Amino acid sequence: MAYEIDATHDPALESWIESAQDPESDFPIQNLPIAACRLPVEDDDDDEDTWIEDLVVPIGDKLLNISEAVRSGVLGGGGKYEEDFDSYIAYGAPLNAIGDPDVTPGFRAELRRRISRLLAKDTKDLRDDKKLKKKLLLEREGADVIPAFQTQDFTDFYASIHHATNVGSMFRPDNPLLPNYRWIPVGYHGRASSVIRSGEPVRRPLGQTEPAEEGGAPGFGPSKRLDYELEMGFVIGRGNERGIPIAIADAEEHVFGLCLLNDWSARDIQKWEYQPLGPFLSKSFASTISPYVVTMEALAPFRAPAPERSGDDPRPLPHLDSGPNREGGAIDVTLEVYLSSKEMRQKKLEPVRLSRGNLKKMYWTVAQMVAHHSSGGCDLQPGDLLGSGTVSGPTRDSRGCLLELTWDGDPFASPPVAAPGTARTPIELPTGERRVFLEDGDEVILRGFCEREGRRRIGFGSCRAVVQAAPKI
Amino acid sequence: MAYEIDATHDPALESWIESAQDPESDFPIQNLPIAACRLPVEDDDDDEDTWIEDLVVPIGDKLLNISEAVRSGVLGGGGKYEEDFDSYIAYGAPLNAIGDPDVTPGFRAELRRRISRLLAKDTKDLRDDKKLKKKLLLEREGADVIPAFQTQDFTDFYASIHHATNVGSMFRPDNPLLPNYRWIPVGYHGRASSVIRSGEPVRRPLGQTEPAEEGGAPGFGPSKRLDYELEMGFVIGRGNERGIPIAIADAEEHVFGLCLLNDWSARDIQKWEYQPLGPFLSKSFASTISPYVVTMEALAPFRAPAPERSGDDPRPLPHLDSGPNREGGAIDVTLEVYLSSKEMRQKKLEPVRLSRGNLKKMYWTVAQMVAHHSSGGCDLQPGDLLGSGTVSGPTRDSRGCLLELTWDGDPFASPPVAAPGTARTPIELPTGERRVFLEDGDEVILRGFCEREGRRRIGFGSCRAVVQAAPKI
Repeated sequence: MAYEIDATHDPALESWIESAQDPESDFPIQNLPIAACRLPVEDDDDDEDTWIEDLVVPIGDKLLNISEAVRSGVLGGGGKYEEDFDSYIAYGAPLNAIGDPDVTPGFRAELRRRISRLLAKDTKDLRDDKKLKKKLLLEREGADVIPAFQTQDFTDFYASIHHATNVGSMFRPDNPLLPNYRWIPVGYHGRASSVIRSGEPVRRPLGQTEPAEEGGAPGFGPSKRLDYELEMGFVIGRGNERGIPIAIADAEEHVFGLCLLNDWSARDIQKWEYQPLGPFLSKSFASTISPYVVTMEALAPFRAPAPERSGDDPRPLPHLDSGPNREGGAIDVTLEVYLSSKEMRQKKLEPVRLSRGNLKKMYWTVAQMVAHHSSGGCDLQPGDLLGSGTVSGPTRDSRGCLLELTWDGDPFASPPVAAPGTARTPIELPTGERRVFLEDGDEVILRGFCEREGRRRIGFGSCRAVVQAAPKI
Repeated sequence: MAYEIDATHDPALESWIESAQDPESDFPIQNLPIAACRLPVEDDDDDEDTWIEDLVVPIGDKLLNISEAVRSGVLGGGGKYEEDFDSYIAYGAPLNAIGDPDVTPGFRAELRRRISRLLAKDTKDLRDDKKLKKKLLLEREGADVIPAFQTQDFTDFYASIHHATNVGSMFRPDNPLLPNYRWIPVGYHGRASSVIRSGEPVRRPLGQTEPAEEGGAPGFGPSKRLDYELEMGFVIGRGNERGIPIAIADAEEHVFGLCLLNDWSARDIQKWEYQPLGPFLSKSFASTISPYVVTMEALAPFRAPAPERSGDDPRPLPHLDSGPNREGGAIDVTLEVYLSSKEMRQKKLEPVRLSRGNLKKMYWTVAQMVAHHSSGGCDLQPGDLLGSGTVSGPTRDSRGCLLELTWDGDPFASPPVAAPGTARTPIELPTGERRVFLEDGDEVILRGFCEREGRRRIGFGSCRAVVQAAPKI
């Protein structure tokens, strides 16, 4: 099943919610991503705070409570999808059960169509019902929005060949890009418990770092090389039976949608620990995701050919290759990183943009990652999070982490601007502060959006967190 | 808190369940591990099979249903622990909620004391109540026993220096033991979804393997080097707040108990994929655990000093070092691997033992692994599974996987018996069959037990699975 462009993508479509027409809004009626929202339960006698987690769809500066919309009878109801609306939407988050094998085929597309219809300019059901609107519409600003899926397993890939080459040059100067890179979407298992929501502060980790001299004792203390990684997260909507690989032709059916992902990394801890079994504590202290999952249906107008393979690039093995993947396996998402220091916020200065890249330039597509992940029989589950790996492009301003961005080495410069790993160039902030890696109080903000001629721009909202000081030792 | 030896460990203690006195039984009254058991719900009108998952404790050849025991009033009831019995035991599996911060301190020890008392020879409450016995006691043989905890995250360590050196010699002949090994309990994130119960078959994975010649295309097909890994699993019973490390002095309080773990590994897939981010699909097709978790309380009489550090071994950094850990951080568990081929089972031949090792010889202790894991702020959660890594000792017959066992290279032999990685010596089975790696139809069985002079032997049951053919490509 390919995700098709239909009437819900029509750029002329407008909503009766005015703010959705703002051309700058991430959330026009053509988008309709899904999140959850914590809502206090008011009629509770208990002393403890209690809440429910309803499913919501952002529209302009509002949130539509779609769980309550089903319960109130304006969404779902009747027809072959009635049970699906009752089972998967009315009960609220987590949305993981939408991966059940008995969900009616086509339900996700139908959900999108009905939400689109309910919010369309000419639909009166909700528009003209003041009482119901009060119940179903919330202000987005200040709402307690969280991801709709409970993260099961977290896998992080390494799909940008530019990132892999840059980082490889620093960690293994003689051998930057390993021979398996062009054959395997290289990835590793990450930590699910520390996948956290946008807005939660991130505490600088303590950890062991390389001894100052060979044979000496390693250091232990707060990381001095704390970094972000600009990534896209792919949320699995449907799993596979353990032992049975997913064919590349079916791979995208298993993906529910995309969110922003900041895979925080402590580079000094990583350098000392990562051999031979890969990154561990340098990553597992936190990974931040944005709450809004933009569905694969919404992304249909923004597909792009997978990057062309040429020169050293072999044709992928058959289980990772298909015509549709070559022609439209990539997704055209512009991704940006912004930084705001504590001093900048105190002086009311706007965050500065550090880089801008694009997901479509990744060496491996989401279908290839899903097909590879399941090729050995590993069972994916609804709610699994797959990270793309750092989204870095070929140019300096498209490098998706500070490790690459403040590094003088540039494998594409000839002669090289510096011997790899020998020098670092700080970033200047508008306050005169300088950054090589992150400082306590820094806020990192990821943004993403899709733009295309003749299409309404859609966005991912933001993924943000402030760095807190390490715990005292 | 240290786990103390008390009256429940008294070797003279006997149960009114006769089979528990069998000196060969893994489950005397001194053991009392915890598992869950699927029980059909009979009064259900629905066509579908439904069941409940009650908590059980194996005793001799029986299972005591402790959830039903609480519901029936012979366990729990009254006193300061009443709510704990109701909240954590009466509802059945999963047992993860026992990690709640509001569990009454001492509840786990009290649970053990009360079960011990209920089963002790002189306690009449259950012994003399035929009707209740019928309800609470099940035959262990044929029961659908499963782990009591839902696996959250799975982390696999690499704590045997013998295993690390052997495998390092094969994968990196020039550089077998990396400089971080003696400083860091090296580990990596594993896959939680494919942690499966003993008895479930394991399907041979498909995967990419190294090109036959440099620059050539990799192969893709069923793994030709399928292996087991003899490990111990540590089940986390209580988590930590994200960002806040667990001190080594407190580390064992966070561990509920131990089970057997077979971390199946496809060596040919591993060799090609593992650089630079570690093992991925070569491990994530399946990891089998035994259902019975032997509690830290039960293991109190079987503690041992951590292996002495000498020669090249540095003193661990302070956050990984403590007097109590040096004096009693290790656990004396004998671990064995048995193999039974399809032909052997057809000819009714007993499984053959391939190796025998001991957990106490691991370079890193469970307290060190827990302290390290949380040192960067990663939040452990109840139900997390920590694997020890392959338990291999210094001798050939204590090597915990076929990769080491059938390999001629022996870093301790002088002169070496073969150039590392160049030759493999098959194992002869009683049928005349030979094994270098696992064949379809092979059953691998792990066993473990604790024995000590003046103490009643306790065991872990078994962890077993049969290898199935790979799916057709």
